[in-house]
Amino acid sequence: MDYRQQSLKKHEEWKGKIETVCRVPVDSRESLSLAYTPGVAEPCMAIHADIEKSFELTRRWNTVPVITDGTAVLGLGDIGPEAGMPVMEGKCALFKAYGGVDAYPLCIKSKDTEEIIRTIKLLSGSFGGINLEDISAPRCFEIETRLKKELDIPVFHDDQHGTAIVMTAALINALKLAGKNKEDIKLVINGAGAAGIAIAKFLIDFGVKDVTLCDKNGIISAGESWLNHAQAEAAQITNKRHMTGKLADAVKGADVLIGVSGPHCVTKEMVRSMAQKPVLFTCANPVPEIDPEDAKEAGAFIVGTGSSQNPNQINNVLVFPGLFRGALDVRASTVNREMMFAAAYGIADCVTEKQLSVEYILPYAYDKSAHECVAKAVADAAVKTGVAKLKS
Amino acid sequence: MDYRQQSLKKHEEWKGKIETVCRVPVDSRESLSLAYTPGVAEPCMAIHADIEKSFELTRRWNTVPVITDGTAVLGLGDIGPEAGMPVMEGKCALFKAYGGVDAYPLCIKSKDTEEIIRTIKLLSGSFGGINLEDISAPRCFEIETRLKKELDIPVFHDDQHGTAIVMTAALINALKLAGKNKEDIKLVINGAGAAGIAIAKFLIDFGVKDVTLCDKNGIISAGESWLNHAQAEAAQITNKRHMTGKLADAVKGADVLIGVSGPHCVTKEMVRSMAQKPVLFTCANPVPEIDPEDAKEAGAFIVGTGSSQNPNQINNVLVFPGLFRGALDVRASTVNREMMFAAAYGIADCVTEKQLSVEYILPYAYDKSAHECVAKAVADAAVKTGVAKLKS
Repeated sequence: MDYRQQSLKKHEEWKGKIETVCRVPVDSRESLSLAYTPGVAEPCMAIHADIEKSFELTRRWNTVPVITDGTAVLGLGDIGPEAGMPVMEGKCALFKAYGGVDAYPLCIKSKDTEEIIRTIKLLSGSFGGINLEDISAPRCFEIETRLKKELDIPVFHDDQHGTAIVMTAALINALKLAGKNKEDIKLVINGAGAAGIAIAKFLIDFGVKDVTLCDKNGIISAGESWLNHAQAEAAQITNKRHMTGKLADAVKGADVLIGVSGPHCVTKEMVRSMAQKPVLFTCANPVPEIDPEDAKEAGAFIVGTGSSQNPNQINNVLVFPGLFRGALDVRASTVNREMMFAAAYGIADCVTEKQLSVEYILPYAYDKSAHECVAKAVADAAVKTGVAKLKS
Repeated sequence: MDYRQQSLKKHEEWKGKIETVCRVPVDSRESLSLAYTPGVAEPCMAIHADIEKSFELTRRWNTVPVITDGTAVLGLGDIGPEAGMPVMEGKCALFKAYGGVDAYPLCIKSKDTEEIIRTIKLLSGSFGGINLEDISAPRCFEIETRLKKELDIPVFHDDQHGTAIVMTAALINALKLAGKNKEDIKLVINGAGAAGIAIAKFLIDFGVKDVTLCDKNGIISAGESWLNHAQAEAAQITNKRHMTGKLADAVKGADVLIGVSGPHCVTKEMVRSMAQKPVLFTCANPVPEIDPEDAKEAGAFIVGTGSSQNPNQINNVLVFPGLFRGALDVRASTVNREMMFAAAYGIADCVTEKQLSVEYILPYAYDKSAHECVAKAVADAAVKTGVAKLKS
């Protein structure tokens, strides 16, 4: 039985990867009158007088929904809201296990951008933060941007920024080993959907000066007729050398290739055409852009993938539990760039100089101390940038 | 410190009455690849092929949101969505403790009927059933009716039907003691909001022939200018003797008075004017329509209230955990009248003939066997009426 069949069997046995439990006594007349009627009227009125008290008198302070519309689930695409739920539940399980966050899986039966925004806004009073998940590009950009603007709790689209943060963490440590500076490298991203574009923007803000995006049509270059709105916008800040052509053209002389695309689109020839000590983060799931063995044979210095089956797993599970833990701990009103950079450094710093090697650039996802490290870094950054309502 | 201050203090300590927990191992590379990527793709695709599988491969089979707009919270009125959350959390705690149901508290920041219906429909793929809570009349009628029609999972507005069911259970046992038949009694309900109207309709369906509704303006009688839409509709099936006037006029010669209104609106004189062995369920919260001592002094045979401080607490916490447990167990597609009647008899039957007395007509809310009894009765009724997808 392979791991897919095993997983199906396990899901049949588990009948749910999370559950809700009762934290208070309700086994007597007295306890009921405190947790429920008539006593409960008092915390209700306290929140009525000051909505901020909802973060003290209910679980709101620790509660984050993992929300999808089921349009971009894993690499499976638009499989529908209900079919996305095993992933959402998995995220909720990891939220609790690694970050102590109470997360609820929610799927929305709509693909309409305005309707999704409206639905989440209407529910926002129930939560301490919002984790968007597996919503397809370009709608996910508008949904996240608008919700960030219109809500005063942290909003985070994991596929964009979780991926961008963990890639940045991997890059920080890979560049240490390669002896290169972020300002000097040529970096190519293959895949210009939600994740690819978010990574490009994030790395540019982070300080990488030469970033080029590609998708299956070729290099994202201003003026190309096939660009969508988000790609056209990205073309304004990427591809400074005004390259045109295909991925094979873009990677010539590149120091780093990040893949968030599909299986087998990177060849050994491409790897051979890169700069010395080439770094490849080929994260297509479940099958990477190039087999890690092939990449190594072609001269790759460091190879990371999205899979736990190979060394250097680059997975955003390293990000979201700690990021929300930190944001919730200081009741941050948003997730800003500084908090995201802090998360990237937090992850990278978990690997000591002594541990760091071409086969170990990131901590393991199940290493709890990594998540604590991220939480601390994010909380500190929130306080420093003035978006925290509590002290860290 | 009185119970209200104690409750506030407890809520400050608790910081939430429920929490989400992780049910599966995620502490190693292997376990992660089963509960999360890449293995999780398999249950996702199984649900994509057959949405019904979402009841087997995720927690959906056991998950119910407790949803409010915060417009009719306890007796406190329109205190706002966030302020209703301590009650919603309390319900969720009781859902788990008494029914084993995983419930999430959700508040919706809108009072617009269509928007609330739309929001809940969009989220319905996440849940096995929907519990509506503390939504003011008359919007709650339309919201429940439409959702029942448009969704294929159980939808239940607890303030209407939870209250109607527990009142019916209390009535069944009170009539046993009074030696009267439901078909022969005169029954008056004071309070013609969501609960009062739902109780009236329910009791008429149950077999009570003479039901009269009152509110603060007086008897609900066809043609009165002050009736709202729901009251005008109720006037068509209640008040068969075409009475007009005030509550005091309605209760003359009545066998049963049900109060779901406000404090101190029932006098000793009114009780004295009722038929022999008068039964009073005065359930205004937290202060009843008449002090139970005063009612007894004026000759009341049985007095029930909403409070745990007096004998005969009539609280819908006896209903919703078992009702949803039963409905979920057989994957009922709705909650029909037969299931509700079964719940009422289920509760009433928990009090044995030997136990039954004027001071003990209902089981205690924290008596787990009562909830099990309700669950069994509801599941059986769902199977019998052909709305169950599984066998009980």
